[in-house]
Amino acid sequence: MTTYADSARLVMERCDILGGYSEEPDRLTRRYGTEEMRRANAAVAEWMREAGMETRQDAIGNLIGRYEGSSPDAKTFLLGSHLDTVRDAGKYDGPLGVMVALACVERLHARGERLPCALEIYAFADEEGLRYHTAYLGSSATAGSFDLALLAREDADGIPLADAIRAFGGDPDRLAESARRRDELLGYAEIHIEQGPVLEERGYPVGLVSAIQGQSRIAVTFTGEAGHAGTVPMWMRRDALCAAAEMVLAAETLAKGTVGAKGPNAAGSLTLGSLFVAEFGAPITGNPPFGGHPPYIENFLATVGQLTVEPGASNVIPGRVTLSLDVRHPDDKVRVKACQNLERRAREIAGRRGLRLDWRVAQETATVACSKRLTKLLRQAIESQPALVHTLPSGAGHDAAIMSQIAEIAMLFVRCERGISHSPAEAVAPEDVATAVEVTERFLALLAKDVAKRGAR
Amino acid sequence: MTTYADSARLVMERCDILGGYSEEPDRLTRRYGTEEMRRANAAVAEWMREAGMETRQDAIGNLIGRYEGSSPDAKTFLLGSHLDTVRDAGKYDGPLGVMVALACVERLHARGERLPCALEIYAFADEEGLRYHTAYLGSSATAGSFDLALLAREDADGIPLADAIRAFGGDPDRLAESARRRDELLGYAEIHIEQGPVLEERGYPVGLVSAIQGQSRIAVTFTGEAGHAGTVPMWMRRDALCAAAEMVLAAETLAKGTVGAKGPNAAGSLTLGSLFVAEFGAPITGNPPFGGHPPYIENFLATVGQLTVEPGASNVIPGRVTLSLDVRHPDDKVRVKACQNLERRAREIAGRRGLRLDWRVAQETATVACSKRLTKLLRQAIESQPALVHTLPSGAGHDAAIMSQIAEIAMLFVRCERGISHSPAEAVAPEDVATAVEVTERFLALLAKDVAKRGAR
Repeated sequence: MTTYADSARLVMERCDILGGYSEEPDRLTRRYGTEEMRRANAAVAEWMREAGMETRQDAIGNLIGRYEGSSPDAKTFLLGSHLDTVRDAGKYDGPLGVMVALACVERLHARGERLPCALEIYAFADEEGLRYHTAYLGSSATAGSFDLALLAREDADGIPLADAIRAFGGDPDRLAESARRRDELLGYAEIHIEQGPVLEERGYPVGLVSAIQGQSRIAVTFTGEAGHAGTVPMWMRRDALCAAAEMVLAAETLAKGTVGAKGPNAAGSLTLGSLFVAEFGAPITGNPPFGGHPPYIENFLATVGQLTVEPGASNVIPGRVTLSLDVRHPDDKVRVKACQNLERRAREIAGRRGLRLDWRVAQETATVACSKRLTKLLRQAIESQPALVHTLPSGAGHDAAIMSQIAEIAMLFVRCERGISHSPAEAVAPEDVATAVEVTERFLALLAKDVAKRGAR
Repeated sequence: MTTYADSARLVMERCDILGGYSEEPDRLTRRYGTEEMRRANAAVAEWMREAGMETRQDAIGNLIGRYEGSSPDAKTFLLGSHLDTVRDAGKYDGPLGVMVALACVERLHARGERLPCALEIYAFADEEGLRYHTAYLGSSATAGSFDLALLAREDADGIPLADAIRAFGGDPDRLAESARRRDELLGYAEIHIEQGPVLEERGYPVGLVSAIQGQSRIAVTFTGEAGHAGTVPMWMRRDALCAAAEMVLAAETLAKGTVGAKGPNAAGSLTLGSLFVAEFGAPITGNPPFGGHPPYIENFLATVGQLTVEPGASNVIPGRVTLSLDVRHPDDKVRVKACQNLERRAREIAGRRGLRLDWRVAQETATVACSKRLTKLLRQAIESQPALVHTLPSGAGHDAAIMSQIAEIAMLFVRCERGISHSPAEAVAPEDVATAVEVTERFLALLAKDVAKRGAR
């Protein structure tokens, strides 16, 4: 009998093979619709057929493998993730989920076992959006929410998306036929590397995803007055960068929950701020499982990732600074409140310094909750083995968020090294992959029991 | 008799004419050695000759007009400024000083008056350094400190400086002959727009320059760890931009003198900080001539003008930030101490946040004091008319700083609108130019008396 370690070894080997299909010689880059995506799909299709699956490619180019259920008119449960990559990518973001799902079907096939529902594995053709600067082309076609206006969009070489779909063997005029109907689906589950450091830090091989966390993206511009760094006295300046610096620290302080904190406590770490508590009430806090860290607000994230200074010369006082503000929280109400709080702070900073503020919300995405029913089954699958259950929200977006439009979703995170992703340094341990295969297999068994109990139709 | 207002009108007209000699149709740009510099030199030489001066161009291309003294073997006093510009320049930075000096000689000539010393006006061919990215080509040749290694440097079109000198009618092999000897000079005086807002803010048409202020330029790099903005908890981050933001505010706070301040006082303005006083002793402070401002440290300036974030994506935690730090103070000891203070702050910030700090001093320029003797004469020239005397250091560099290598120097600043310079919005009032002409004329008269008393040799 094949052990989970054997399955994991195969998963790792296949991720290595797929990592070789790259458009660039020295690093892994595999964009939608390219020759390398075609070769990746061909390799995975071959493995799917070896696992007893029928394969097809839909109108956008998603590769789908179908493993029939015990009854021909059973509903279908979907597993999946994506095969495209970012530029200079790691080997596991996307492919790992497809390979773990495939390993589970392979194990069923080896035992000659059929479930009371059909299983389909989706290898989505585009999630990262590297080629057309719009993510989720694959899953949005599957969910029936593909925006046809995108077909005219051109890549860096001037090739319209419609042409790229045709060249990839798809059909831009028949994308609607790729959409799945809610009533034929039992759900969608996705296995994915965490892309964050929490599971490693806390010692869990896998984690249950509670939700795909909402996000606000805000473009903040402070406009003051440029001037000569050698001639304008400090008290006459309207320095846009000083305002931006206050804003950067305001965002960090808020997300850390240290707004209004009275300074380091006896143990040398910051206490939760009184102003934070006044604004957000009793916060959900946690303590990292090691010393030296302050208590923190669970899953509250605020990041300034871009900051541009104009004119941007060493001897010129900054006249204008634009910065990006990225705020995430699993509770949409808290996220909205946090953005309002930060906008008030920005207005206070701008007012005090005599600057103009431009606050432009560029994107707001609500939190997508994972299915309570499916996640309960996934939890039981983890509890049945010695590993402890750890639940965390996903801060990154995933195909599952799109698939939630037509099906209940569940997600399992796999621990990755130092939380690194979107980098060739992306790494997972074979033991954790073995755990992921085992948990997914148990999940499918529990699902089968549940389906049999309810009737698969 | 020509009034000062008449002279000022001519100065303004000539600045307008020179502003038309531009390499670019829609904005004023006049680099060293160009056809437009040649036309500017030709126009000024013509005006010089009309004012009774003999003109010549030296080996670097400086235009020099000489107005003989009453005695043929008298020493020479120099007046001057530059005729080249920055890109998209104003009309007064440089040319104003040459035109005011010329107006004074013109007035002497109209009266048939000779001084006991010769006067020479230098119209320096390069001060801004726009074409070869190295400033003071003109005055350094005059001071005998021209770096011959620069001759091989190429401009954006690949033209070496040596060729540009030849094309401009100069001779790169005879630059040494352009150097003036200290023993033949009585001093150098430069009239220049302030390029800052202090005189306007305080209501003075002109100002005495006490010194050309020293400067430290430091490149500061914080290196932390990039990461996904949606997945790395706040307490696990090593965000380089948050550290940089603390640094930006530390520099501002130090220069404002509010380090260790206890917060707003009763009047709503900040008090001088106790930590600042502890570090720098009793500071030289002033109070702006209007309410609402804190007391401030005179002429202490710290500016972060450039800041670059890597990787610089809205959803990625900044892993590395490089910023420029520009610190100026008329007292070199205070400047050095301030830089040490800021480096300690940077190390503390980096240490607390687990970042690497790179602190690289890119440039250190000592303060150049103006001549007490010449400045006293200039002060007397101002006191003899109703305007009040105001003394301030120059935060920007000037040809006078280079000329101090071979002569005592004095500088007179002329008020400019809103402190704006290096911009087409640069503006001066004709009344202030009239004051500058009057003060310079009186200065030359006082100088003549002084020279006669000491003997001109």
